Amino acid sequence: MKPPKYLIDAIKNNNSFLILTHTTPDGDAFGSAIALKFLLEQFNKKAEIYTDYPIPIQYQFLPGSEFIKNIELLKFEDLVFSYNCSQKNRLYFDTLIMVDCNNLSRISYKQEIIEKIKTFSGTKLIIDHHIESNLSGSNCLKWIEPQQAATGIMIFYLIKAFNGEITPQIATNLYTAIIVDTGNFQFDNTTQEVLSIASELISCGAKPSYIYQQSFESWSVNRFRLFIRMLNNIELLPPVVIAFISKKDFDETCTQESDTERFVEFLRILKDINILALFREVQEGFLKVSLRSRGDVNVSKIAEEFGGGGHKNAAGYRIEASFEEARSKLVEKMQVYNMFK
Amino acid sequence: MKPPKYLIDAIKNNNSFLILTHTTPDGDAFGSAIALKFLLEQFNKKAEIYTDYPIPIQYQFLPGSEFIKNIELLKFEDLVFSYNCSQKNRLYFDTLIMVDCNNLSRISYKQEIIEKIKTFSGTKLIIDHHIESNLSGSNCLKWIEPQQAATGIMIFYLIKAFNGEITPQIATNLYTAIIVDTGNFQFDNTTQEVLSIASELISCGAKPSYIYQQSFESWSVNRFRLFIRMLNNIELLPPVVIAFISKKDFDETCTQESDTERFVEFLRILKDINILALFREVQEGFLKVSLRSRGDVNVSKIAEEFGGGGHKNAAGYRIEASFEEARSKLVEKMQVYNMFK
Repeated sequence: MKPPKYLIDAIKNNNSFLILTHTTPDGDAFGSAIALKFLLEQFNKKAEIYTDYPIPIQYQFLPGSEFIKNIELLKFEDLVFSYNCSQKNRLYFDTLIMVDCNNLSRISYKQEIIEKIKTFSGTKLIIDHHIESNLSGSNCLKWIEPQQAATGIMIFYLIKAFNGEITPQIATNLYTAIIVDTGNFQFDNTTQEVLSIASELISCGAKPSYIYQQSFESWSVNRFRLFIRMLNNIELLPPVVIAFISKKDFDETCTQESDTERFVEFLRILKDINILALFREVQEGFLKVSLRSRGDVNVSKIAEEFGGGGHKNAAGYRIEASFEEARSKLVEKMQVYNMFK
Repeated sequence: MKPPKYLIDAIKNNNSFLILTHTTPDGDAFGSAIALKFLLEQFNKKAEIYTDYPIPIQYQFLPGSEFIKNIELLKFEDLVFSYNCSQKNRLYFDTLIMVDCNNLSRISYKQEIIEKIKTFSGTKLIIDHHIESNLSGSNCLKWIEPQQAATGIMIFYLIKAFNGEITPQIATNLYTAIIVDTGNFQFDNTTQEVLSIASELISCGAKPSYIYQQSFESWSVNRFRLFIRMLNNIELLPPVVIAFISKKDFDETCTQESDTERFVEFLRILKDINILALFREVQEGFLKVSLRSRGDVNVSKIAEEFGGGGHKNAAGYRIEASFEEARSKLVEKMQVYNMFK
């Protein structure tokens, strides 16, 4: 795989990059963003990453995570691009790169932040492995590879295309990106190529068991308590399993949305279960729904029915409803798509 | 890594192989044994595998597992080796190969089976990655590589040394061997070499997510319920976590000891936990205790105090006591060994 020439040229011809990713960034988002920043810096370009804040505890080990800035602090002036900027030492960006995200509306939960970013008039690039949504900006140069397991793999090839150096710091970030999006090499997207790249990243300095431990085994006791609550509250409708975490569960265990990472994937452990749904009541009456499936079962179709999206085997949507109502609607759609056969 | 010449010669010069492994075989034992059988058959040699029986459900998908025979049915006559065997069509062995095991006394729980095998007078070979025990037979040709993550990796190199073909069947068995012994690439033994070999096995036909699913994600609902019970009943004494599954838990969820595979390892997920202990009341008043640790913490010392044993990071023992009593004794010993620092 090679990055398209227009993307390489756009990077070569610009100097100051604003790197953004989706809300509630995961390991692929953080790892890809940081590795990209390090790559750009190897070529004496400026790069800054702005994301949701604070960085979840499991990604604070990522070398470079200390440079990530809070997207709420992104200033309007930073986005005013000028070819003849006379104000030295002032931070501004000539290029915006969205990584692991191809939709401006997924950059933030806050409309004012999205509106602010929309004022940006410089070059806009997208590097992502998610299926493109209808809403994405048409005035962006896009490199989208939905068949790739992780955006981190695309960054790997971008580094190769630039003849960049895969430092131990970059290797650690990209290895993390890959294991987070492949479930540490357990999902369908784990290919010969994925393991071969991971193997090369180890030879460049990534430490597999350390990275695994940091990314996957750093659960706080509160997160663990939340997980147990979810398990105690599961509905089995083989081949479907439905899980629900209420606002009360979050509040009483002092946890938040980011603490639920990989909860839904854990439920794959059950035999004869092919479809997993996790409802998270992130605000009262407002649910985030994560769908996962195995093999040929396409849950992105379901997510699209509710205005969401994703991959065939991993998709999601948001819905303003009570859990009972949202659950009924989901089960109904699953019946329409013949998922209970 | 290359297999020693004496081992290759011994295989080349013999024709009929009895393949054995340790009791309660795991994925590395089964996968290595089956891949070895297939390799020998590529060179028109006879090979039979005898193990504990029946094969656990999670390994029944292994291609070739249908040929595995019950070690209890191994006949005394099969072990009578004769260079001039006149009885055609009679099964006999000129060579015994122990894989993933270097100690005859670990071949079976039954002393009469061990004694029977001890009568074998042909060539004896050992291919294993466990540290050699004092008790192992001195009259065996040994190839022991304790630094290797899995015996499956040694079989991989053996196939290379023989210029054998890595068929999809062999690739599936060896991939399983590797993921079971590296916790699907999460333990300290996951190296560049391990991922590189796994990648090659995929290109030879191993299907990563299918193999993962079969080996790791075939939990019955009952097993899942047992797991939730364990989680609901956990004691956190950082850096120690103590879990207990009572006879009642087993009975009420219709589960048994073998359903607890990987339960204790799951608890590694907790941050700041370095020592894990799982008590399983397999009979009333009789407990099996599994100890796990990270890094330099040596739990085999503790297990030895109670008459058990194991490795530095994975050990166990049995104790006739109530849980409360056994728990107190364990905590006491952990204090003696300064594990609560």
